Amino acid sequence: MSKPEDFFKNVISHAKEYGFIFPSSEVYDGLSAVYDYGQNGAELKKNLREYWWKAMVQLHDNIVGIDAAILMHPTTWKASGHVDAFNDPLIDNKDSKKRFRADTLVEDFAEKINQKAQKEIDKARERFGDAFDEEQFVATNARVKEYKDKQKAILTRLAHSLENNLLADVKALIEELEIADPDTGSKNWTDVRQFNLMFGTKLGASAENAMDLYLRPETAQGIFVNFLNVQKSGRMKVPFGIAQTGKAFRNEIVARQFIFRMREFEQMEMQFFVRPGDEMKWYEYWKETRLKWHLSLGLGRENYRFHDHEKLAHYANAAADIEFKFPFGFKELEGIHSRTDFDLKAHEEYSGKKLQYFDPELNENYTPYVVETSVGLDRLFLAVFSNSLKEETLEDGSTRTVLALPAVVSPIKAAVLPLVKKDGLPELAKSIVEDLKWDFNVTYDEKDAVGRRYRRQDALGTPFCITVDHQSLEDKTVTIRHRDSMKQDRVSVSSLRSLILEEVGMHRWLTNSL
Amino acid sequence: MSKPEDFFKNVISHAKEYGFIFPSSEVYDGLSAVYDYGQNGAELKKNLREYWWKAMVQLHDNIVGIDAAILMHPTTWKASGHVDAFNDPLIDNKDSKKRFRADTLVEDFAEKINQKAQKEIDKARERFGDAFDEEQFVATNARVKEYKDKQKAILTRLAHSLENNLLADVKALIEELEIADPDTGSKNWTDVRQFNLMFGTKLGASAENAMDLYLRPETAQGIFVNFLNVQKSGRMKVPFGIAQTGKAFRNEIVARQFIFRMREFEQMEMQFFVRPGDEMKWYEYWKETRLKWHLSLGLGRENYRFHDHEKLAHYANAAADIEFKFPFGFKELEGIHSRTDFDLKAHEEYSGKKLQYFDPELNENYTPYVVETSVGLDRLFLAVFSNSLKEETLEDGSTRTVLALPAVVSPIKAAVLPLVKKDGLPELAKSIVEDLKWDFNVTYDEKDAVGRRYRRQDALGTPFCITVDHQSLEDKTVTIRHRDSMKQDRVSVSSLRSLILEEVGMHRWLTNSL
Repeated sequence: MSKPEDFFKNVISHAKEYGFIFPSSEVYDGLSAVYDYGQNGAELKKNLREYWWKAMVQLHDNIVGIDAAILMHPTTWKASGHVDAFNDPLIDNKDSKKRFRADTLVEDFAEKINQKAQKEIDKARERFGDAFDEEQFVATNARVKEYKDKQKAILTRLAHSLENNLLADVKALIEELEIADPDTGSKNWTDVRQFNLMFGTKLGASAENAMDLYLRPETAQGIFVNFLNVQKSGRMKVPFGIAQTGKAFRNEIVARQFIFRMREFEQMEMQFFVRPGDEMKWYEYWKETRLKWHLSLGLGRENYRFHDHEKLAHYANAAADIEFKFPFGFKELEGIHSRTDFDLKAHEEYSGKKLQYFDPELNENYTPYVVETSVGLDRLFLAVFSNSLKEETLEDGSTRTVLALPAVVSPIKAAVLPLVKKDGLPELAKSIVEDLKWDFNVTYDEKDAVGRRYRRQDALGTPFCITVDHQSLEDKTVTIRHRDSMKQDRVSVSSLRSLILEEVGMHRWLTNSL
Repeated sequence: MSKPEDFFKNVISHAKEYGFIFPSSEVYDGLSAVYDYGQNGAELKKNLREYWWKAMVQLHDNIVGIDAAILMHPTTWKASGHVDAFNDPLIDNKDSKKRFRADTLVEDFAEKINQKAQKEIDKARERFGDAFDEEQFVATNARVKEYKDKQKAILTRLAHSLENNLLADVKALIEELEIADPDTGSKNWTDVRQFNLMFGTKLGASAENAMDLYLRPETAQGIFVNFLNVQKSGRMKVPFGIAQTGKAFRNEIVARQFIFRMREFEQMEMQFFVRPGDEMKWYEYWKETRLKWHLSLGLGRENYRFHDHEKLAHYANAAADIEFKFPFGFKELEGIHSRTDFDLKAHEEYSGKKLQYFDPELNENYTPYVVETSVGLDRLFLAVFSNSLKEETLEDGSTRTVLALPAVVSPIKAAVLPLVKKDGLPELAKSIVEDLKWDFNVTYDEKDAVGRRYRRQDALGTPFCITVDHQSLEDKTVTIRHRDSMKQDRVSVSSLRSLILEEVGMHRWLTNSL
């Protein structure tokens, strides 16, 4: 296998070459940390969104979906805490004029110390082989222990300073550790300041009555402010959920790792409203249910793990991430949060309106508690795409690149290929396309030798290639080639639709998520 | 029939009461000209989007879809002309401090003069009956002719001033006509100034290197800047199209008429790239094709008309609107524009990069011409929703409200209703829901008498109600009630799926669009 960095580079270049993801406004040399989805990426993203919507909304009789606007009344973000607390601590280098996240500078420094310890551990492991006991080694080797202790001390102090907003202490830490600008080596730093991550804009024409707005940094608040409208007009009974997919925007300082952390991204969120006191039961339920949904895509159980948060956000009384093994390691793919009644209560306070539910069984009014599931659609795209990209060595020693996407989300479900460009084969192939295209995305390709066309469809993630040959003219059969096994079967033209639908339809896939 | 204004009010209140559209951030008293789609509106909007995507992308083998970001490199909007020319002429009243579109003030004034003429014409028509010749009357009646001439003179002068950016003359016109602030009667006006309609924001943390960005005012440019990436990675051959749906933003001064003109809205656009010289052929093709698509929804041919533009935008050599009869009159629903090579050439000029296509048949390079089809998804929603809302008087003299949505886009396809809440009927009804929900949106309702439940589903636009009664327990049959005819048939439970899919599936509906 290639190195993780090289593999990740392959992912990015494959995404561009095959029309999945382009840098935004690339003719103008791109816009940092913003990407466009190309003709195949748009379909894959759309299919992933639909797979989520179907599972969360259509299959749950107590969950409905809404579509709230990106622009919201600015008091929304005062109530949610984003105006006051959605900040990153930033520091400028006075010589290079470059800006950094102060916490990232310190964390990177601590990680370097940790890597020194890791090097010693790796050497020892090599020396002792199977008998090696890492825990014991770290506890007894003075130098390693010193590294580990130092790393821990730095991170503890950083966490304490950030939690208490002691920005001067963060700066002092940077100076004590003699952290330098990684590019220039300069240690000439400004003070640390908080910088709000929301994009601002102004509504209205007149300068004197313009309203300061924000591009929403999360979709969740669009659900909370609509809670009563949905509950009443839909006669919803607690427990019930409101789901939504849509764009959110964060003015990240260090946006990186391709589409993993973008300034403009899409969320798929569901807020589940429950009786106060029931939230931990539902929190556990949604942790399990969401993991099962991810597993239904078939990327492999070993690529997922839970990470329970020790440090909780101001609105939560429990929180966990479903982490996925991205090319750059395990990182958050989805968050499940028990948000208590923080948001609804905050909107009550700021709006002066009651956001309560009358529970007919209990015969009482209360503010529901909320359990949230929140997945990044772009991250999900990256998880599926990078996990599916494979370089295979075949029996004859040649290699092929295959994008083994879950067939249910593949952009193109079948390619129809006439073996040669004559003798009426293109006409028959095109008539098959005409017939199948009503039910799923089909493509037609007659260019190059059929082997090269197979390779091209492999690289696009197309699960089926249908080849029309001379025998097809006689007996109305074609060969159908399976992307992953490369196995070919001869089947009748009339059986194609149901054969493919059976494999690519959501029913079969989503059954595994229940 | 009720008056148009009253009917439009009914549309808005029905949309809210039944969970289709809520004012955005309503707990904070709303955000002007921004709306949220509720649980039924989100599904209807999603279905309309999918109906467009299926027809434009999936069924056309030479059209692909992309999903470009809302944030784009700012030079994009310099090249497109939006930075310099996407303006409204505004004027402030110094006393009321209110701001108006100067052109709208003048147009409204001219329309009042026209209405005086219209009054005379209406009186004469009443007097002369069938024999009345309007043209002759206007030409010979001195007073009417004077009104008409005056209206025309005002509009001609306004158009000339705006075309030549003579803003002082627009103000002079307002003063000469003694136009007053409609609310306060004050004639104390400021100068007229141009105001750009794009929402601005800033990218990046540091004040010194922040980049001024805009929220895209149209989705089209996201297609143009990706033209070569898509063409090359998808090996597309001219003629071919790139389609996209997504949000766009315009800081409208006078945003009104519910979701017809919003500050945040969604477009569904397709740019079709053709050989220079072929554009008028394709322009006619797309006018016809798009009209057929609209007609396939079955809202009635009489509600659509073409409006060919006489005054063309700077990028176009031909343009037409498909207008729809909204509750407030015929207005633009979709635009078809022959945009020439204006956009690609402009991006070539500003980026310094070639955006040309090598045509293998002609063996030459050229910049393709573009024919655009652009429909507002929110306007389409309003067209379908308002056209479908009906107050019917039944045979027994009672009335019912029915939302006779095209079944293919209805939010809920079927409601399953146990006749009574006992004897095992709820269990059987729920098992039918469990079975059908994999294929389309189904709802379950057991509250209130069955007649009231029918009415509720009528108001939601649900095409089918399935009622489970005692006979159902014995012979596995149910009644299926058709929303529009209110006719009920007794059918077997096992036939429900195919019966409903046949009526609500896209195949049948879209066949009419071809």
